[in-house]
Amino acid sequence: MQGKKSAGTDEAGRPGENGNGAVQSVCREAREASRILASLSTGRRNRIMTALADALIEQAPGILEANAADVAAARSAGLSASLTDRLVLNGERLEGIAAGIRVLERLPDPVGTIMDGRRLDSGLLLERRRVPLGVVAVVYEARPDVTADVSALCLKTGNAVILRGGREAFNTNRALVAVIGACLESLDLPSTAVQYINSTDRSAVEELLLMDTWVDMLVPRGGAELHRLCREKSRIPVMTGGIGVCHIFTDKSADTEKSLKVIENAKIQRPSACNALETLLVHKDTAASFLPKLAAHMAPFGCTLHLSPEAEAFLPEPRGIATAPVREGDYDREWLSRDFNVHVVDGPDAAVAHIRRHGTGHSEAVLTEDAAVARRFVDEVDAAALYVNASTRFTDGGQFGLGAEAAVSTQKLHARGPVGPESLTTYKWTAYGDYAVRK
Amino acid sequence: MQGKKSAGTDEAGRPGENGNGAVQSVCREAREASRILASLSTGRRNRIMTALADALIEQAPGILEANAADVAAARSAGLSASLTDRLVLNGERLEGIAAGIRVLERLPDPVGTIMDGRRLDSGLLLERRRVPLGVVAVVYEARPDVTADVSALCLKTGNAVILRGGREAFNTNRALVAVIGACLESLDLPSTAVQYINSTDRSAVEELLLMDTWVDMLVPRGGAELHRLCREKSRIPVMTGGIGVCHIFTDKSADTEKSLKVIENAKIQRPSACNALETLLVHKDTAASFLPKLAAHMAPFGCTLHLSPEAEAFLPEPRGIATAPVREGDYDREWLSRDFNVHVVDGPDAAVAHIRRHGTGHSEAVLTEDAAVARRFVDEVDAAALYVNASTRFTDGGQFGLGAEAAVSTQKLHARGPVGPESLTTYKWTAYGDYAVRK
Repeated sequence: MQGKKSAGTDEAGRPGENGNGAVQSVCREAREASRILASLSTGRRNRIMTALADALIEQAPGILEANAADVAAARSAGLSASLTDRLVLNGERLEGIAAGIRVLERLPDPVGTIMDGRRLDSGLLLERRRVPLGVVAVVYEARPDVTADVSALCLKTGNAVILRGGREAFNTNRALVAVIGACLESLDLPSTAVQYINSTDRSAVEELLLMDTWVDMLVPRGGAELHRLCREKSRIPVMTGGIGVCHIFTDKSADTEKSLKVIENAKIQRPSACNALETLLVHKDTAASFLPKLAAHMAPFGCTLHLSPEAEAFLPEPRGIATAPVREGDYDREWLSRDFNVHVVDGPDAAVAHIRRHGTGHSEAVLTEDAAVARRFVDEVDAAALYVNASTRFTDGGQFGLGAEAAVSTQKLHARGPVGPESLTTYKWTAYGDYAVRK
Repeated sequence: MQGKKSAGTDEAGRPGENGNGAVQSVCREAREASRILASLSTGRRNRIMTALADALIEQAPGILEANAADVAAARSAGLSASLTDRLVLNGERLEGIAAGIRVLERLPDPVGTIMDGRRLDSGLLLERRRVPLGVVAVVYEARPDVTADVSALCLKTGNAVILRGGREAFNTNRALVAVIGACLESLDLPSTAVQYINSTDRSAVEELLLMDTWVDMLVPRGGAELHRLCREKSRIPVMTGGIGVCHIFTDKSADTEKSLKVIENAKIQRPSACNALETLLVHKDTAASFLPKLAAHMAPFGCTLHLSPEAEAFLPEPRGIATAPVREGDYDREWLSRDFNVHVVDGPDAAVAHIRRHGTGHSEAVLTEDAAVARRFVDEVDAAALYVNASTRFTDGGQFGLGAEAAVSTQKLHARGPVGPESLTTYKWTAYGDYAVRK
């Protein structure tokens, strides 16, 4: 198409955006590749999934070798155990990733569907059709599974993707992207559809944030600092999320034994996850009996309870569990550990008020046998996911039946909660007339 | 609810965001009001529409008096005729606004509908339900119709709204907002659901951009400079749009006489609109016969054609119409007048390439009898609205059957094209279990 060269020449002409040029080239190539991807049928995009899952298994030895180098380097650099654990790939994890990609293959394709349409009074036949976003950029930490998951999700939905993972996973990510690129080429598709920014400099990320000419959506997956950087400096529309200060409110009507199992799951199953419990709110009418049982239940898991003054009053010494007083800021932090805050509230209204102050709009749960309390909680708490008698840990693309997820959005625009295939699309209005003019 | 005071105290605690406090108060009050609005039934929100339409007609004398003062001031300050025209209200225009609000009343309510849901393997019953965004802020120019339209649209969908219109319409907007406020109070609803920022200082807008704690979406409606300010400085997610460099491509297969009528409509009906024609692309195989007919057809409307070198070659002198050569930057500007660019291209591919370089993703049209050309144009051009044999002027919430519009989005995230009721909503995932834990 004639536009290719001229578009590049023109788009490159903006002053002050060129930087070292490497990031820009990556973005421009991704934009070109996105046009080819957008033209593929559902069947062809699904066949990429099969080929990709097969390739990851076939090429496992090379991928695991690269990963072993990253893990060794991380250990000698003293990376924390939990971060190192996220970095590790092995045969089983790779099989899990491949299995997830095969699930994606079988999911319905949002692209190309007609969302709605009508015949207008003007005679125009109007349709609204889902199309890929175009180019999606994801900046993340040392999690190689994200590299594969996000690539597959973007290819499933006809998007090109630009990846920039943490430096600790550099070799693993390069190996994964090489496998994905070779797989695309074997299907006669451009390997530039999945791009990796090879620089581990922060300046490369800052340069990427200016590439709104070529990139349609930026997804930061990392800590609060990365999110702030993106929100303040990005010219690309940003999908923020992944910061979860999640609450559980145990109402006076809740079953205590069952509640303790849910609290245990929400805190212990994966404390470093964004959907893990950070603050437990207990109804004051049951606090005197509930809190000692909570301490007894959670002590074997090595938990530390950060108690509000109100909670302390209901938990006489000896407490049988590590405790600390809630300090300034504790209600607004992700513990990412086996710590959590415990506070006693007057009732559902106070619980909702506490969550409005401190929640990050991620996942919030109420445990109650009272239908009116459940309904009010779900109506009045403003978050991506609300749970009645369930663990906050369910907020996840796979659990929600969406296949993989590119992130968990805590913003209200575009997508909320797990960012699945539909969230990687936009739509076009198309209208057909007979040389129609507006009256 | 207990949260009201404490939430305010806490949220106000962020350093550096307070400014003079007036804008912040407006935003906090709107947030409080949004919670009440979000709890209203469809019927109650629709009854606001009826009351609002009635009140605008009943209170017309006061509104028109305020408007007369604004118009007189604008005339003596030498405001341009086209801007003054946008500012003027009269009985007929007010009736038109009220009629639009009555259309909104009858439109389906997106809020509260279940978008989808399923029973998950974990036993959870998952639902996705549309809810209001919360608080929407709109910054616009001297168009009092926007004040009424946007207020009605936000109230229809359960959102509070913060308005900041152009200083030329200050008295009119104050009168309108007073009528809306009294109408809300007569229905036992908080008048703070529709707020007006009374300061005409630009600093008030800059302060508003920092209010992401209370405001969920910012819609700038104005020139490119306002959009840039918002994109670069806003911490609130921004819905950009309204900048339309719209093209029509006349294929060699198009009927010339019918095409001229469409071009006339797209340029002349309302040259200042964002969906008006700015650049006409003509297939080279028909340029020799088409361009002289174009000149003859458009000359009586007082048009000026800005000709590319290729177009000049096909239009021998005397041209019978005002012309000028296309200058650097002309392809990227909104003429907002009876001027437009005329360029000759080799065919559909070159037309698509030109639009990729210079289009703003608003509205693009192809005039053709060739189904393959039509299909490729619609597939390959990336814009909010694509037209086959129709004027670009149709891109409008009313024309599309959405009722009023808060803006015309040219971004891909969240909403694209006319921002109607659905675009003022987000969703919540809600899941119901029996003390369910994730395996």
